Amino acid sequence: MIDLGAADADDGFAARCAADQAFLGLELAADGTASFALTGGLARHDRRLYGGTAVAAAIALAEHASGRPALWTTVQFVSGATVVGDRIDCRVDVLAAGHRTTQLRVTAHVGDQELFCALGATATPKAGSLSGVFEEPPAVLEPELCEPFRFPLPKSMRGTEMDLERLMDIRVARARDDAPRPVGQLLFWARVPDHRASPAILGFLADMVPMSVVHATGHMGGGTSLDNTLRVGQPAATEWVLLQLDPHLAQGGYGHGTGHLWSPDGALLATASQTASLIVLD
Amino acid sequence: MIDLGAADADDGFAARCAADQAFLGLELAADGTASFALTGGLARHDRRLYGGTAVAAAIALAEHASGRPALWTTVQFVSGATVVGDRIDCRVDVLAAGHRTTQLRVTAHVGDQELFCALGATATPKAGSLSGVFEEPPAVLEPELCEPFRFPLPKSMRGTEMDLERLMDIRVARARDDAPRPVGQLLFWARVPDHRASPAILGFLADMVPMSVVHATGHMGGGTSLDNTLRVGQPAATEWVLLQLDPHLAQGGYGHGTGHLWSPDGALLATASQTASLIVLD
Repeated sequence: MIDLGAADADDGFAARCAADQAFLGLELAADGTASFALTGGLARHDRRLYGGTAVAAAIALAEHASGRPALWTTVQFVSGATVVGDRIDCRVDVLAAGHRTTQLRVTAHVGDQELFCALGATATPKAGSLSGVFEEPPAVLEPELCEPFRFPLPKSMRGTEMDLERLMDIRVARARDDAPRPVGQLLFWARVPDHRASPAILGFLADMVPMSVVHATGHMGGGTSLDNTLRVGQPAATEWVLLQLDPHLAQGGYGHGTGHLWSPDGALLATASQTASLIVLD
Repeated sequence: MIDLGAADADDGFAARCAADQAFLGLELAADGTASFALTGGLARHDRRLYGGTAVAAAIALAEHASGRPALWTTVQFVSGATVVGDRIDCRVDVLAAGHRTTQLRVTAHVGDQELFCALGATATPKAGSLSGVFEEPPAVLEPELCEPFRFPLPKSMRGTEMDLERLMDIRVARARDDAPRPVGQLLFWARVPDHRASPAILGFLADMVPMSVVHATGHMGGGTSLDNTLRVGQPAATEWVLLQLDPHLAQGGYGHGTGHLWSPDGALLATASQTASLIVLD
């Protein structure tokens, strides 16, 4: 029995790990390697690997290898040269395993081509230690009252019948009041239907920051992520996640920004940050 | 001659790279590896490797290997088992070199022990592309009017004559007005004397976020960083940097937060983020 500490004890760690592995279709080998098939549900519009899928896989594999819940991960996207149907081979290296913290590296390949590399840590929370949230959740209407969001499509794909197959619901989160919001901030409700927002699922949902950077410049668009960083916060049993996307800056065709991921009742589930090569679609 | 693009053309890229290498004492070998000695000026109070030094080294090596200015890096601290006098061996792997972006990985060892691993990208800025800053710099007095900051010392080191040797000036940045600041936010002026705040130097200065997380809980302290992430923004020729440290949350003994690095005239030089194991010192 893995000791998850008081803060995570009732969270059903083993059950949520199993649910994450099933969602990704992860096949775990006895030698510590793993693989999964890139399906339409885990892909981008152009049927290449979706960045959030890489984050989710890195987290799921780090949690499996360490037996501890994820604390932080950064995924670097090395190559996008993969399409739906490819099998992605993953390897986990435990770099250091301490009393409370495990440091890991996850690398993923298709054949000889490195797709992504993730650094990260998992950690056993210490009961009774310092805690606090120093941000305020935005006041928005509940997801049931909000309209679905349709991702802006690249010009080459407009007018086609193709819809995003990705296993994700996303809605435009409407503010409860008329208070001014920070420049460029975007608010969405997002979920993977029938999946608890575990750290892996949070990583899957959070890959939206570049859209807010382009939005802040007065355009529609997004970006090709160079990395995704996720920092895991308060545990909460929720399916819907409020994505608060805050752009920092655009410079030289690249952009940086941050996301806060909130539960419907105001727990700060995680923070995210990203750098992307920006793409304007309007 | 390296083409740095219009946005960076007058920044003296080669000169600032040489200055960064000299600051770190980097010895570059012909086979692409490098090494440097851990000096007191690059260490923590306890004479172990300072996290900001690792970020600076990773950035300097990525810029040298790619001939492009740094865009983003994340450094994972695997082991702190090194002391002043050790020689740190570094290796740079170019994972992908594109038309504008190079993706790299830097690993550092003392003997057989991995100290840190960095992922990151360097990039040639695209002239005339999207740009903008979507944050406001805090209004503070200039550094000459602000008092030096003394880092809180671990209990074991109090009352000793030992002073921090690190090559860094740091001052408490005083607000110009009485407007309320966000919970836990800390503002410092920091510089490496006689060094321009290049991306490597920004990484050196930014390793302060955990202090703001502990501060937000009502204590003095800091943390052992698990990682440092730096995202590079607007270029500006400045020595002093305003560090705006914003804590996000503390949970289970760990904390996350963000830093914004501003020039004295309000350019957003970089953003930083970190996860740390928190330490209370009061």
